[in-house]
Amino acid sequence: MNNIGPDYERFAAVYEKKEKDLLKDYFNFLRIPSISSEMEHRQDMIDCAEWLKDYISHTGLEVDIWETTGHPTVFAEYNLAGRGKPTVLIYNHYDVQPVDPLDLWDSPPFEPTVRDGEVYARGAVDNKGQTFYVINALQTLLELDGKLPVNVKLLIDGEEESASPGLSAILNQRKKELTADHLMIVDGGMASLTEPSVNLGARGVISMRVEVIGSKVDLHSGVHGGTAYNPNHALVEILAGLRDSSGRITVPGFYDDIVELTSREKEQLDFSDNEEAYVSMFGVKPAGGEKDYSPRESSTIRPTLEINGISGGYSGDGMKTVIPARAVANLSSRLVPDQDPRKVGKLVSEFIEASAPEGVEVKVRVSQGGGRAVRVSPKAGVIQAVVKAYEEVLQAKCGFLLMGATIPIAALLKEVSGADIVFMGLGLGLDNIHAPNEHFGLDRMKMGFITIARTIELLAD
Amino acid sequence: MNNIGPDYERFAAVYEKKEKDLLKDYFNFLRIPSISSEMEHRQDMIDCAEWLKDYISHTGLEVDIWETTGHPTVFAEYNLAGRGKPTVLIYNHYDVQPVDPLDLWDSPPFEPTVRDGEVYARGAVDNKGQTFYVINALQTLLELDGKLPVNVKLLIDGEEESASPGLSAILNQRKKELTADHLMIVDGGMASLTEPSVNLGARGVISMRVEVIGSKVDLHSGVHGGTAYNPNHALVEILAGLRDSSGRITVPGFYDDIVELTSREKEQLDFSDNEEAYVSMFGVKPAGGEKDYSPRESSTIRPTLEINGISGGYSGDGMKTVIPARAVANLSSRLVPDQDPRKVGKLVSEFIEASAPEGVEVKVRVSQGGGRAVRVSPKAGVIQAVVKAYEEVLQAKCGFLLMGATIPIAALLKEVSGADIVFMGLGLGLDNIHAPNEHFGLDRMKMGFITIARTIELLAD
Repeated sequence: MNNIGPDYERFAAVYEKKEKDLLKDYFNFLRIPSISSEMEHRQDMIDCAEWLKDYISHTGLEVDIWETTGHPTVFAEYNLAGRGKPTVLIYNHYDVQPVDPLDLWDSPPFEPTVRDGEVYARGAVDNKGQTFYVINALQTLLELDGKLPVNVKLLIDGEEESASPGLSAILNQRKKELTADHLMIVDGGMASLTEPSVNLGARGVISMRVEVIGSKVDLHSGVHGGTAYNPNHALVEILAGLRDSSGRITVPGFYDDIVELTSREKEQLDFSDNEEAYVSMFGVKPAGGEKDYSPRESSTIRPTLEINGISGGYSGDGMKTVIPARAVANLSSRLVPDQDPRKVGKLVSEFIEASAPEGVEVKVRVSQGGGRAVRVSPKAGVIQAVVKAYEEVLQAKCGFLLMGATIPIAALLKEVSGADIVFMGLGLGLDNIHAPNEHFGLDRMKMGFITIARTIELLAD
Repeated sequence: MNNIGPDYERFAAVYEKKEKDLLKDYFNFLRIPSISSEMEHRQDMIDCAEWLKDYISHTGLEVDIWETTGHPTVFAEYNLAGRGKPTVLIYNHYDVQPVDPLDLWDSPPFEPTVRDGEVYARGAVDNKGQTFYVINALQTLLELDGKLPVNVKLLIDGEEESASPGLSAILNQRKKELTADHLMIVDGGMASLTEPSVNLGARGVISMRVEVIGSKVDLHSGVHGGTAYNPNHALVEILAGLRDSSGRITVPGFYDDIVELTSREKEQLDFSDNEEAYVSMFGVKPAGGEKDYSPRESSTIRPTLEINGISGGYSGDGMKTVIPARAVANLSSRLVPDQDPRKVGKLVSEFIEASAPEGVEVKVRVSQGGGRAVRVSPKAGVIQAVVKAYEEVLQAKCGFLLMGATIPIAALLKEVSGADIVFMGLGLGLDNIHAPNEHFGLDRMKMGFITIARTIELLAD
């Protein structure tokens, strides 16, 4: 274990002095409703990118906005570290998830509120909170030392929650700007602050929208019950048919391209489950995976096919005896190496369309975005630096995990930058990211700040 | 066929003279958003009942409002026909279905609009239009002759679209007021005006709400995909399991109490299907029923179990990679003689609750309302009178059908009144009842008016 040293102390002292002002800026950042997936927030996305550009311009980094076919990307860089110094590319995102159901929020999602040392707001963690401590760690290093010990490139995506289609499309044009030695994806978390970890991999993802189309108009379920094929029935039958009773996905070819971990690779990773802790945190048993794999395996080294949303007819209280004209579902599949998102999307959508019963029409639209899974070695320099920084900041041994979630852009960035990659961050399981009452601890804002500052220093050594 | 006679002519002449004023009143009736299933319309229900009381009070009938545990019932009567004259009980309802999805209406649902001789509004047919011609036929008979040839009781329900729980509960207390010789349920329709028909039966109904409860909060489908059991998956698996591949309901005991029609009974009824007409009207094949029965049989003499609504997670455009904390579905089962609604509700809900996979909780709430199926003989006096009236008005032979829909209160009213029953009305398949753009023809308003007036005269003979 590393002892807390002078390097840690100087960052902690600066942070404490600045904290009040930093939180004001953080709250202003959180107040911008930058929901990338909702068209009505298009201007908010532009406003948020402009806010960031202005904010970063005061740090000493050169900052620019990259237009994309979607929402803009914010890019900043520092090139004055000197000959032979490595270049670190840091990835964050400023877009956030939608906020519904709004009535489950205890305080408004875009009005940050502090309760018991936690900041409640959409994006508090994911990923405005983590973006914010990265920017301020760099600013403080520059302020304290007059320079950075490594070259830094800061890439802040505006479409991570929508699978980064715009940024993905321009990566190859921006290859020169993005070339780096180390790539830090600061959009993750760990199981607990007392058992810190860095992630050696993320799953990929591909999304689909299923639409079942029946009659021209909604029909009366008394008059037409037994005559019209109810799109709700067709939809539940089709979706239920995607998994067998062991939880295995039935789509032919779905598992074909998976590369299994060797037992040696498995040993380096923590696959331990704590069912009791899971039940206590989430109120349910972790029983959703394949019967042949443990929950932790099912959520990291196995792919999934989840129904993220389903809707058809009248589902409110009271009765509306209707056979709806259509029913829809949003699906997403998490992928593991070496599944190809486009191939999986095609396999699943063709299987679904072929399952349409007579009397309805079924259409599947595979989303434009999507990304491959990524895995890295625990020996990479950037991994070692982050492990050391976490051990200093959190005063606990840092382990290795695989991540169930996806940073859709990660695989592409790794390729275009040519860098080793680390997935890191101070999110915790109970932060409610993507859900009502998302929150981030004031203590973790400080920890993140110091971790980034220390990692930058360590990468210069 | 009956020729158009002087009785027909005198009613047609009066109607034509009054039409403009009648439509004004009809439109005012339609403007009241009397949606019985939505709590926010509670005051509108009271306003609508008061509007009717005031309107009927000008006809010469004595009118009263019956309070119930739910929305009020409007009751009116005429007792001066004289000794030995029969009593006719006529049933309508003033409540309407919800209007969503609102964006599919071409004109506002509560602002009646005439296009091509059709009145577009929620309730235009079901059942404000048919209530309206009944009231005005009675008023006109009284105006022309100074009296009615039979005693009349007019019962206008405020909860038909919600299965009439309030009225059902007070029927036995109101037995004296409701005793009658003939019972006319004027809330139905026919296949076409050129092939008129009356209905000799209606299916029963029982409704349920299914709730699948997972984790305490919505979860991230990357982090928890493969760990948490997605309530959407549990719901589609459970609902898909309610029917086998032949369309037969799998719930044990579901079909036990069905009394099959004899072949003689079947011969008197029209079970003909017209697939081409169905496809042209509704845009789909009538492929939703049991494989062992024709569409017409499936929708009249066979029970159903329909998913009227389903909802869970984010089903809008764009992505929200969530595992929702809960998912819900509204189900309804149409019943045939002699299925018991309570028994079927219990069988289905117990089957569903027993299907819950580990990792979620499943709760089913059976609705308070519900009603048994009803069947009557084509020889009943009230049937014969209505057949004659339709043949005069529509100048075509009138046949016999069974109805797929339910008038939940019908079985109870038949029992408490001691009367023979007829299901009648001028609704047509393309009227969009229970759907956006519900509409009723101005020509049918007139036909309904004359049919009621003539039926009342014929029942006095």
